Amino acid sequence: MNNKTIVLASRPTGTPTAAQFQFEKREVPTPEPGQLLLKTLYVSVDPYMRGRMSAAKSYIAPFAVGEPITGGVVAEVVESHNPQLPVGSVVVGNLPWQQYSVADAKTLNRVPADKAPASYFLGLLGMPGLTAYFGLLDICQPKVGETVVVSGAAGAVGMVVGQLAKIKGARVIGTAGSDEKVAYLKSLGFDEAINYKTTPNLGKALAAAAPHGIDCYFDNVGGAITDAVYDHLNKHARIALCGQISMYNATEVPTGPRPEGKLLKSSSRLQGFIVSDYLPRWPEGVAQLTEWYTEGLLKSEETITEGFDQIPAAFLGLFTGENTGKAIVKVA
Amino acid sequence: MNNKTIVLASRPTGTPTAAQFQFEKREVPTPEPGQLLLKTLYVSVDPYMRGRMSAAKSYIAPFAVGEPITGGVVAEVVESHNPQLPVGSVVVGNLPWQQYSVADAKTLNRVPADKAPASYFLGLLGMPGLTAYFGLLDICQPKVGETVVVSGAAGAVGMVVGQLAKIKGARVIGTAGSDEKVAYLKSLGFDEAINYKTTPNLGKALAAAAPHGIDCYFDNVGGAITDAVYDHLNKHARIALCGQISMYNATEVPTGPRPEGKLLKSSSRLQGFIVSDYLPRWPEGVAQLTEWYTEGLLKSEETITEGFDQIPAAFLGLFTGENTGKAIVKVA
Repeated sequence: MNNKTIVLASRPTGTPTAAQFQFEKREVPTPEPGQLLLKTLYVSVDPYMRGRMSAAKSYIAPFAVGEPITGGVVAEVVESHNPQLPVGSVVVGNLPWQQYSVADAKTLNRVPADKAPASYFLGLLGMPGLTAYFGLLDICQPKVGETVVVSGAAGAVGMVVGQLAKIKGARVIGTAGSDEKVAYLKSLGFDEAINYKTTPNLGKALAAAAPHGIDCYFDNVGGAITDAVYDHLNKHARIALCGQISMYNATEVPTGPRPEGKLLKSSSRLQGFIVSDYLPRWPEGVAQLTEWYTEGLLKSEETITEGFDQIPAAFLGLFTGENTGKAIVKVA
Repeated sequence: MNNKTIVLASRPTGTPTAAQFQFEKREVPTPEPGQLLLKTLYVSVDPYMRGRMSAAKSYIAPFAVGEPITGGVVAEVVESHNPQLPVGSVVVGNLPWQQYSVADAKTLNRVPADKAPASYFLGLLGMPGLTAYFGLLDICQPKVGETVVVSGAAGAVGMVVGQLAKIKGARVIGTAGSDEKVAYLKSLGFDEAINYKTTPNLGKALAAAAPHGIDCYFDNVGGAITDAVYDHLNKHARIALCGQISMYNATEVPTGPRPEGKLLKSSSRLQGFIVSDYLPRWPEGVAQLTEWYTEGLLKSEETITEGFDQIPAAFLGLFTGENTGKAIVKVA
């Protein structure tokens, strides 16, 4: 049986290209006692994976050159040596970009297929949703009537952040990179949405959108948007530093106006985080997100690309803003 | 009776000079019922006052041009219309740069002259000491064996930060601008001290001084020192953002390497603050600092300039690093 695999061919300098991804045909692995053979259904492509392509020390170990890329995957159990996950079970876990793989049951979570589409457990009800949940609710802690800004608002994390902030009674402003995304954010209930690519003066646009200043900032992007937000921080503002996608492909250390003076004057708090900082609280997060989804308080948007061979293209599209909502590749 | 006063003559562009300070002779004011006539004994000059010389919005209102500069002052009651503060009482408060002034008793705190020299209530046991106390103990929360870096370590706040970190069992590294200050920090018990002016590679020096990385950073200075610290942050580092003296006289927005990527990867927390954020806890802070001082666990260094006319020079000296420890002007 054919088993396509994508390995890291080389480390990128600057923006990754298709050349970094090598397709190989591997044997379908044989599960050991207690293990499962899994057929990949959906592959998640996420901005944080850019960091793992580099050798630089970061919060997760780099991918190894010549080894399969791994990430969030929804898969179906096609051979089971563990009674808890019988054939036909749908699971989510950190798995290789590969059509078939084996894994221990304890590294997987069963997808409750009756609750939501399976792919949602890679997005709204998975890692990106949890990132929004803990970053916004634990770090930013928006209060009723406060103003929340989220950059990369139409991405997998941002779309959840904005909706959670609305649930908490805040005024929500999102930034995104196209008029279609701006319209999408409005449809989600964002109070204001700014197309950062076509807005001539981001500072003015933010000041107009946030007449009472900014209390919370959930940053997925960094750079010019962040600089503009920092000019409008209210006293005791809270900043969840989640991502800096505008700089992930930089080849030199990015420079900009130093933020410390503005953070100091406003007694602001900035907290860098990664969702795994909250690992012990993931079950709580999934349960709450699922409840709000079931109640109709949370919606999900997905940009689904079809075909295993399209995984690299879908990943590269994250950096040109191709996706609205969660970027997913449907493999089988 | 002559009553010399220093008023703000004009707002500085860049580094302030003596031209910004105008000496005037005013009438000795007459206290109203319930008020006190105060004779200024010690005037505190502090870096934060630079911010008040500018018109820009900050955490405290700007000084008004043509009006007396105000700041921390220790004074003696020479005429009392309030039985709680009889003639001869020594008090500390926010008062004008003036030989004699009047104030309501409720805006003043009595100096417990039996506990420590009166000028210490402008430094170790006053606003700078409280700044160190809350910034280090509330924001940084150093644990036994952790590594704490403090910039501007030989200043009024920094000297206290380092000593408090030693009380908490941390390894303490200070940066300062002269070999004399480095020697002073060593005498205070700092584990390492770095002369940032003569050290060719701050990053290498910090790496050598902090072989296990940096857990806490108390920043009074900003700029190149901060950039170097951010390269060595441990996971879940805590940064108390207290001052940015290296940039207070900048005439353009200071630029530098963007810090967000480093803060993100280390899941670090950065908190800007001003000591007044902790106003309700000041009595606790003064009591604890006084207790540690009485026990011999805290020492104070002062750079005392003599004479009312020397106040502007003492203030300007803050920006050229003239002071070791607290800069004080002895007026009478």
